[in-house]
Amino acid sequence: MSATLESTTTHGGEGEEISFTAAALAQHVGGLVDGDGDVVVRRVAPIDRACEDDLSFLGSSKFVSLAAGSRAGAVFVTAALKQAARSARARIIVAEPYEAMLRALPLLYPARPVVAEIHPTGTIGRGASIGRSVAIGPHAVIGADAILGDGASVGAHAVVGEGVRVGAGSWIGPAVTLYPGTTLGERVRIHAGSRLGCDGFGYVFAEGVHGKIPHVGRCVVGDDVEIGANCTIDRGSIDDTVIGAGTKIDNLVHIAHNVRIGRLCLLMAQVGIAGSVRLGDGCVLAGQVGVSGHHVIGDGVRLAAQAGVFGDIPAGETWSGYPARPHQESLRAHAALFRLAGMIRRLERLLTQHER
Amino acid sequence: MSATLESTTTHGGEGEEISFTAAALAQHVGGLVDGDGDVVVRRVAPIDRACEDDLSFLGSSKFVSLAAGSRAGAVFVTAALKQAARSARARIIVAEPYEAMLRALPLLYPARPVVAEIHPTGTIGRGASIGRSVAIGPHAVIGADAILGDGASVGAHAVVGEGVRVGAGSWIGPAVTLYPGTTLGERVRIHAGSRLGCDGFGYVFAEGVHGKIPHVGRCVVGDDVEIGANCTIDRGSIDDTVIGAGTKIDNLVHIAHNVRIGRLCLLMAQVGIAGSVRLGDGCVLAGQVGVSGHHVIGDGVRLAAQAGVFGDIPAGETWSGYPARPHQESLRAHAALFRLAGMIRRLERLLTQHER
Amino acid sequence: MSATLESTTTHGGEGEEISFTAAALAQHVGGLVDGDGDVVVRRVAPIDRACEDDLSFLGSSKFVSLAAGSRAGAVFVTAALKQAARSARARIIVAEPYEAMLRALPLLYPARPVVAEIHPTGTIGRGASIGRSVAIGPHAVIGADAILGDGASVGAHAVVGEGVRVGAGSWIGPAVTLYPGTTLGERVRIHAGSRLGCDGFGYVFAEGVHGKIPHVGRCVVGDDVEIGANCTIDRGSIDDTVIGAGTKIDNLVHIAHNVRIGRLCLLMAQVGIAGSVRLGDGCVLAGQVGVSGHHVIGDGVRLAAQAGVFGDIPAGETWSGYPARPHQESLRAHAALFRLAGMIRRLERLLTQHER
Repeated sequence: MSATLESTTTHGGEGEEISFTAAALAQHVGGLVDGDGDVVVRRVAPIDRACEDDLSFLGSSKFVSLAAGSRAGAVFVTAALKQAARSARARIIVAEPYEAMLRALPLLYPARPVVAEIHPTGTIGRGASIGRSVAIGPHAVIGADAILGDGASVGAHAVVGEGVRVGAGSWIGPAVTLYPGTTLGERVRIHAGSRLGCDGFGYVFAEGVHGKIPHVGRCVVGDDVEIGANCTIDRGSIDDTVIGAGTKIDNLVHIAHNVRIGRLCLLMAQVGIAGSVRLGDGCVLAGQVGVSGHHVIGDGVRLAAQAGVFGDIPAGETWSGYPARPHQESLRAHAALFRLAGMIRRLERLLTQHER
Repeated sequence: MSATLESTTTHGGEGEEISFTAAALAQHVGGLVDGDGDVVVRRVAPIDRACEDDLSFLGSSKFVSLAAGSRAGAVFVTAALKQAARSARARIIVAEPYEAMLRALPLLYPARPVVAEIHPTGTIGRGASIGRSVAIGPHAVIGADAILGDGASVGAHAVVGEGVRVGAGSWIGPAVTLYPGTTLGERVRIHAGSRLGCDGFGYVFAEGVHGKIPHVGRCVVGDDVEIGANCTIDRGSIDDTVIGAGTKIDNLVHIAHNVRIGRLCLLMAQVGIAGSVRLGDGCVLAGQVGVSGHHVIGDGVRLAAQAGVFGDIPAGETWSGYPARPHQESLRAHAALFRLAGMIRRLERLLTQHER
Repeated sequence: MSATLESTTTHGGEGEEISFTAAALAQHVGGLVDGDGDVVVRRVAPIDRACEDDLSFLGSSKFVSLAAGSRAGAVFVTAALKQAARSARARIIVAEPYEAMLRALPLLYPARPVVAEIHPTGTIGRGASIGRSVAIGPHAVIGADAILGDGASVGAHAVVGEGVRVGAGSWIGPAVTLYPGTTLGERVRIHAGSRLGCDGFGYVFAEGVHGKIPHVGRCVVGDDVEIGANCTIDRGSIDDTVIGAGTKIDNLVHIAHNVRIGRLCLLMAQVGIAGSVRLGDGCVLAGQVGVSGHHVIGDGVRLAAQAGVFGDIPAGETWSGYPARPHQESLRAHAALFRLAGMIRRLERLLTQHER
């Protein structure tokens, strides 16, 4: 919380309640108060449902009708739309109301401190090393020789496999499975039901059966990575699977064995990355994108939703479609296709005439 | 069970066994018995594996060979195919055998009543409110201040987060996670491993990191919604994520923050809906469909499998393909494309000749 | 382990460590030692990170720079690349270094024997039958009348539903759910979080609601099947859902009700198979493939990543694209499409001229 920020919060242990005046929030985001700067807000809410102690925002003329009669305590609003929010107790005039709201949210909803408690139904294996201020939830299972860094939190029904290392300040959600061979950096967050370090999908067909290839590489997750719910990230076969620091992964994403993902990437829901792909830093993959095996995707590449990648992509490019091509080329191709549909018979007739 | 339906069921507590005569079933579906109307059936089975106390059906001449010699007790069959099922003890002649079977299934397999029992390994947080006749399975975790309505059932290893509200008669499968901020209506069913109320995928890039946006909206699920296994439905960022009453969702579906889905929709497996999409009532989305963020899909829209939606869609339309277009237009475009492949060289030659 | 293979392993209970000399490995794979055949290796590692007791491989001139100065104990390498691995203690000269490594891996990493132990927090229902040498993990729940074959292993937090049958030697990972109606063969492996035997997605719309169709078919999994993490496989509606023996399924795959998958198929991550599809033996479906309902896919069919199948496919064919077509036809169509984009205006002009 900004040191210069005056808060009205009462720090009183369990019953602690966080609140700010409109004036304090205006100061924090560099805005001007119009109305009662002393109004106190405790939560955020959409402008049509906001109550007296709620903070809201109005960022577009599209939503002016929702603002009519709003009972919000304070509203971030542009100068141009100020009148539309006149029923609120206070308006905080800013250039970018939504951005202001994003800056205010962490003030009103700071990350809850982990309650360092080891639930009596949690089980801890032999030789496990548990740091200071660690939380272990109901029925969680910590394997033998696992290492939990200071301040780590393991949710209900999570399994931290034998020898797995969880860095300081990391948060493992409910029902997460970390197979042996998984190593998490610091401040990693993994949501419910994700599975890390599973065996990769590798078989050798011989003598009439698909023989399983043992997987002995690791699954290494860098600092400050966040992984959504119900994802699957396989361990490497011989080499490691690596997720770079600061990368954020949405729900239901699959990452196969030996994949290396760079730093600060964003992978949206249901993306699938096949084995041994290399992804650079700062890549953005929209929902349901698939990348087939062994390709190299450069730094800063952006892939549109559902793109199907079957080749390498140079750094900095934006690709889309199936098979994925540079985005402008895909757009042109699809535009041509839909125009073609209206021309195809005429073209066939023309060819017939000319080739007689 | 229909009041007019005569059943041979013995209601005898644990050993209760449900059975019906062919005559009673014929009466229920409005059919006519051919053969022994007193034959008693207890289960359903495919016609080639049915035994003496099994009910089966034969709805298409494609499956006549499977019916030969069937030992079924009773078979729903059309008048035209009656002879093919002659080895069964009884035939029940109906216009639509499969529809008749669908009507008979709930008679032979009524929903099992929940056994109201709180397993000793379940844990219940402070201030939680547990209704009458509630079932809590082994190792389930009910958070502080959660509310379970009358007759609710929480499966093994499920987590009902702090303050979550589960409506009367709802069924939460094994290993489900309901994050704080989740509210379920009545008679909701959620299958194993689904995660509701997860943080949405929202970050602000500043000072070299993807800063997490706190998510404080709710995840609100209406009455009579059914959600398949291993789905993920995020809570809203400021506003709520809402699933309308009577909507049914298949397995592995992802629904992002702030999405609003109408009433009575059907979302098939692996569908993904990006943030802030609005879906009307009665929409049908086939498997692996993706809808990109902020679009508005009207009432009754139908989307074919794998469609990739990048715009708004008016009510009542059927769209398909990537990028999704009205279905007839997509069909024409794809047909043109495959015809084009055989013409492209000739077209190039023609252009060259004409542009000399 | 091959009877003819001389191993340096000490069989000493818990502290057992497996190791082989380079000479023994060379004999196993049919290679020749160059250097110190007595060097002992205990693990495998990539060539740039390998240490003195690591086995590695160098199979392509692309990776020669990584091999420079390698401290590996032994390296599988071709005769042509032998010099590049000169810093290792021993080279094992083979025609196919990667294949040799795949053959050596199971020696150094044999499947760990299941520790037959029933964790005190596991719960076993009435009438369940538990074979010899069975392992039941922490908080696992075995339902009434379930049957676990000899040597079966059930992971932490797994649920084996009422009456479910698990064949001998099968391994059920953490947090797996086997609904009632599921039957597993022998030596089946199911990874964390997969859900088998869920209700299929079947409703009848009548009187303004989607009425649920009871699902009473089974989910039958053959011998030697492996299923990845977070998959969903529904039970049949009346008939069964069947996965043929020896088939391998990757992560996040969905298989709907009444699907029949043949023997020895490979289904890669995020594949979705809609209801009542029939898949032959030996099919290979790459990532994110979707097959729509009721289609028949012949033996040995191969589908490229993201293919969308809307029809039957004859045995032995390779198809790709959306809508899926024979692969060569898809390739020609896409090539034509991208050439069309550069011609479309000229074609329009030509048509205009000719149709004046």
